[in-house]
Amino acid sequence: MGKYKVTFLPDQKKAEVEEGVTLLEAAEEAGAYINSLCGGQGLCGECRLQVLSGNANADKHAIGFFSKEEVQDGYVQACQTRVEDNLEVLIPVKSRLEMEKIVTGGAPVTYSEPGKLSLRKIPHDPASLFEPLVSKIYLELPEPTLGDNISDIDRVTRELRKRLTYPSFEISLGCLQKLADKLRQHEWKVTATVARHNSIGRVLQLEEGDTAERNYGLAVDVGISTVVVQLVHLKTGKVVGVEANHNLQARYGEDVISRMVFACSRGSLAPLHKTVVTNINTLTRALAKEKGIDTKDINCIVAAGNTTMSHFLLGLMPCSIRLEPYVPTATVYPQIVAKEIGIHINPHGIIEVMPSVASYVGGDIVVGVLACGLADKPEITCLIDEGTNGEIVVGNNEWIVCCSASAGPAFEGGGTKWGMRATKGSIEKIEIKDGRVTYETIGKAKPRGICGSGLIDSIYELAKNKIIGQDGKFNLSVNDKRIVTEDNGPQYILAFPEETETGQAVTITETDIGNLIKSKGALFAAVKSLVDYVGLSFEQLDAIYLAGGFGSSLDISKAIAIGLLPDIDTQKIQFIGNSSIMGARMALLLGPAFETAIDISKKMTNIELSNYLPFMNEFVAALFLPHTDSKLFPSVHY
Amino acid sequence: MGKYKVTFLPDQKKAEVEEGVTLLEAAEEAGAYINSLCGGQGLCGECRLQVLSGNANADKHAIGFFSKEEVQDGYVQACQTRVEDNLEVLIPVKSRLEMEKIVTGGAPVTYSEPGKLSLRKIPHDPASLFEPLVSKIYLELPEPTLGDNISDIDRVTRELRKRLTYPSFEISLGCLQKLADKLRQHEWKVTATVARHNSIGRVLQLEEGDTAERNYGLAVDVGISTVVVQLVHLKTGKVVGVEANHNLQARYGEDVISRMVFACSRGSLAPLHKTVVTNINTLTRALAKEKGIDTKDINCIVAAGNTTMSHFLLGLMPCSIRLEPYVPTATVYPQIVAKEIGIHINPHGIIEVMPSVASYVGGDIVVGVLACGLADKPEITCLIDEGTNGEIVVGNNEWIVCCSASAGPAFEGGGTKWGMRATKGSIEKIEIKDGRVTYETIGKAKPRGICGSGLIDSIYELAKNKIIGQDGKFNLSVNDKRIVTEDNGPQYILAFPEETETGQAVTITETDIGNLIKSKGALFAAVKSLVDYVGLSFEQLDAIYLAGGFGSSLDISKAIAIGLLPDIDTQKIQFIGNSSIMGARMALLLGPAFETAIDISKKMTNIELSNYLPFMNEFVAALFLPHTDSKLFPSVHY
Repeated sequence: MGKYKVTFLPDQKKAEVEEGVTLLEAAEEAGAYINSLCGGQGLCGECRLQVLSGNANADKHAIGFFSKEEVQDGYVQACQTRVEDNLEVLIPVKSRLEMEKIVTGGAPVTYSEPGKLSLRKIPHDPASLFEPLVSKIYLELPEPTLGDNISDIDRVTRELRKRLTYPSFEISLGCLQKLADKLRQHEWKVTATVARHNSIGRVLQLEEGDTAERNYGLAVDVGISTVVVQLVHLKTGKVVGVEANHNLQARYGEDVISRMVFACSRGSLAPLHKTVVTNINTLTRALAKEKGIDTKDINCIVAAGNTTMSHFLLGLMPCSIRLEPYVPTATVYPQIVAKEIGIHINPHGIIEVMPSVASYVGGDIVVGVLACGLADKPEITCLIDEGTNGEIVVGNNEWIVCCSASAGPAFEGGGTKWGMRATKGSIEKIEIKDGRVTYETIGKAKPRGICGSGLIDSIYELAKNKIIGQDGKFNLSVNDKRIVTEDNGPQYILAFPEETETGQAVTITETDIGNLIKSKGALFAAVKSLVDYVGLSFEQLDAIYLAGGFGSSLDISKAIAIGLLPDIDTQKIQFIGNSSIMGARMALLLGPAFETAIDISKKMTNIELSNYLPFMNEFVAALFLPHTDSKLFPSVHY
Repeated sequence: MGKYKVTFLPDQKKAEVEEGVTLLEAAEEAGAYINSLCGGQGLCGECRLQVLSGNANADKHAIGFFSKEEVQDGYVQACQTRVEDNLEVLIPVKSRLEMEKIVTGGAPVTYSEPGKLSLRKIPHDPASLFEPLVSKIYLELPEPTLGDNISDIDRVTRELRKRLTYPSFEISLGCLQKLADKLRQHEWKVTATVARHNSIGRVLQLEEGDTAERNYGLAVDVGISTVVVQLVHLKTGKVVGVEANHNLQARYGEDVISRMVFACSRGSLAPLHKTVVTNINTLTRALAKEKGIDTKDINCIVAAGNTTMSHFLLGLMPCSIRLEPYVPTATVYPQIVAKEIGIHINPHGIIEVMPSVASYVGGDIVVGVLACGLADKPEITCLIDEGTNGEIVVGNNEWIVCCSASAGPAFEGGGTKWGMRATKGSIEKIEIKDGRVTYETIGKAKPRGICGSGLIDSIYELAKNKIIGQDGKFNLSVNDKRIVTEDNGPQYILAFPEETETGQAVTITETDIGNLIKSKGALFAAVKSLVDYVGLSFEQLDAIYLAGGFGSSLDISKAIAIGLLPDIDTQKIQFIGNSSIMGARMALLLGPAFETAIDISKKMTNIELSNYLPFMNEFVAALFLPHTDSKLFPSVHY
């Protein structure tokens, strides 16, 4: 690997870095301060730089952040651009601010390696795909004459037809009722707000004068634990801001099942519907305030969530989702006026909820498939979206199968004594060597608990050091002061009371380990069943993408070693972070993306594992470290 | 012409009648009493008979009154079926009632000669075209299983797809929100109400159990003077009832122009919108009560009216219709929920307003073209729809041109001293011979005034008897006690005070005659201009259909003689009555009719006569009896 020189203008700060280092990292090395709200996650679009010389191109998702002109002018995101040439780069004034951390409530809102993501079906220039769900078109209409006295609405659509490709247009009665006066009072100069609905252009609103700049949309990830909202300027396609909060539905149950039980036992989903709407309204208001825009200028929303969350959001009863034979009310949702469900944006603004596949394969996974480009290429890809519920997809551009795995919340910190989300103070990395424990915490704070990656590390390290057996049980013959036995059985002390924030020891219990083994067993068994189902072996997978709950600190080798992930070349396995919000944003901005998502949802064959005998066998076989069939993990040796 | 024997069962009443006599007339002759609410206008469907032997077929419009099975079983309308064979006919119990007159407030709701009307593009069996705008489909769905666990809405649409031809279905959020519970609470037995919207099936409502019988629609003729509502059973296509009332908008002006002035000068069309909605609601309520149905079972409305009336109905500002360059807000109207404009039917029910062509060529004339089959055949037809505004169409299956002629209300009785609508007591026929006047009045009552046909007769008779000259001026040298001169000039007494209802003489003044000549001149000039415009002569017209305001008592020869109608073979000229409501009903019931109406509206080229120089010349030339160019009226000799 070569080294390259990068010069940052205007201050001529220089760094010599390894090939593949990001421009953001290079800037840090050069001592040039670049704003990056999201901490280099490719999410906020704040770290924009202009490449003046040398070869460094915007990635395909730049369309989320830059106009076509800016892409041509060499604008890139520092955090998403790897150095592969000597470069001269300008830091624009707006990007030269102090760093600050975005408050996302611990939401794992990240995506990386966008170079690996694609929409290969369609041309390479992302700007050419730019076709927002809602367009605002400023019209200066010719005044009617006797020789040209078509109706007012025909005059509007005649002009719209020149600017938009919809074969036909529809208009609401309310809009039509105001049309004649509006056109005449404002000298035939109006801005039309047009939403795409199937292939029809729906004229939502007509405003006086040129308001085309004032056109925003929201990409919303409605997660079980967190709700994330990205504010996007639809005219330019730029991400203006992002906010996240904890899903208020948590008060009715941590997981979807308990929330469904809550709603269905009362016969009312109103509380669950209202809380998630409040989540979105709160974030929207905060973003609008922060960015100085009017919420009335937000004209559309694309939301992605699992099937149950989508039902809650739209006020659809999810009760039959929960019980065999697991039937949702709908998997493709109507485009509706957001106001209809109490969301406060433009009162004419619309919301599209991304299509689901089945009760336990939701729109979040559909847009995940969209975002990772699985359906675009002939190579076979596996996408594992791990959250409170796990979803697995295997497929390529010809076929897609998927399933859901109730892996439980163990990897998100639930169901274990000291488990916690990947926030400040959680142990995210652990090593045990010769009886000594070393760990890293998020924010380098005193330990408060263990997050998913820490738990995976722990199990691996305990097994490797023979402190637990491959069945997950403590080897009580080991003499270690860290092994203590309490009422609930043996446990291992990862951090002594004097090291921790709370003054209590952070431990992992045998029960925790048992739960984690069940979780990893369920996930692995699901992947194995799906790959078997299509007659493939793990070796035939071209890539495994990990999305959602897996923290970026996950040690892939250790995840393989405990039997969570298949034992394939670790180079083939990569994080893609929050593919859900990325996919929702693509659907918001790119013409073909929305239709592609619908196609994907229709193409996906869902395998119901709960009733699939091979899965049960695989699950039982996977309740071992790494697996009862050691031939499946040739590289793993304890 | 031959004679045929008709036997009416069960009473074996017999008549021998001329070929071409209607079965209703034959029954009268035989002394068999058949119910006919509308007085033989083909409107009410009450005079149904079953032809047991002999050749007599239901006409193409029977679909409005009979089910497919009934058509096959030989059911016909007595008033619409002409005797052309020896027949044996059963009078069903329901048709054996006493005659009663329907109160339609004088609305000229008639259509006759349906054999001449066609939808030739499409197959001959009208039952095969039956595809109501709103269908109700009773579904007994299979319960979901693990092997068949598609979403609830997919389960519904999968079944609908087998029964309806729509390529895709849409459902409102409100309907979707109730779906899961409704299906499960009612054992998967529901009735779906599906409206056609473009080519998509819109699921409007889902009801428990089988309610498919309870499906009604309204065909509405929104006229300037009268509003007519037909209640149609959409499952069978039968007309259940008809009601009419005077357009309440009359309080804001007799004609559309004064109503527009009223609305636009106040900047509010609310009063005009509300009154016409009240008209429809009143009629709907009366019909529902009369027929013992629930207005909630009325699921759709097709309304036809001129462009201004359509604007008023939908709450669209019509102000720019009135002024050059005569621009309507829209000519094609969105399908909306009827409730949105305050119409009280099923709250999910829809209303379609038939498309207009331009400001002065409305949906009434478009459906008139539909109803008379002008656009179906290669022969060239002229349709003259005469009402408060006159509209003229010339065309065939390849091209259609149209124009409107502000002929004024003279032929409806407006603008003349003793003019009145064609209601009881109006003089409808007049003959003057050797100084003696004979007349007929409607209802054989004492004269109260003169209706359109009476006025036409009067002018012809006065001119023929040289009482007026061909310029419309009185020949004061004639010595006739009926000619009297008052302050406003000379007038002719048609009925002396002792003959009349009011005790006042019914007269026609020179001013009246002048107004009538202007009206007939405008109408003729419009027809002439349109025919000239397309490079044709009158002889090339295959047929002239008269619709709307012309009473069925109009003497066509006299109308030609005064220069109102072109001087062509009178056999080619015929009444078709209220083509507007007939077309609206066709759009309500027949699959292709609705789309055909849209096609017709797009195909029609409107010629704006107000700025068309040849029209002005034609108009001036036509201000003479019959015309300044006598070569145009070779058959007319005074």
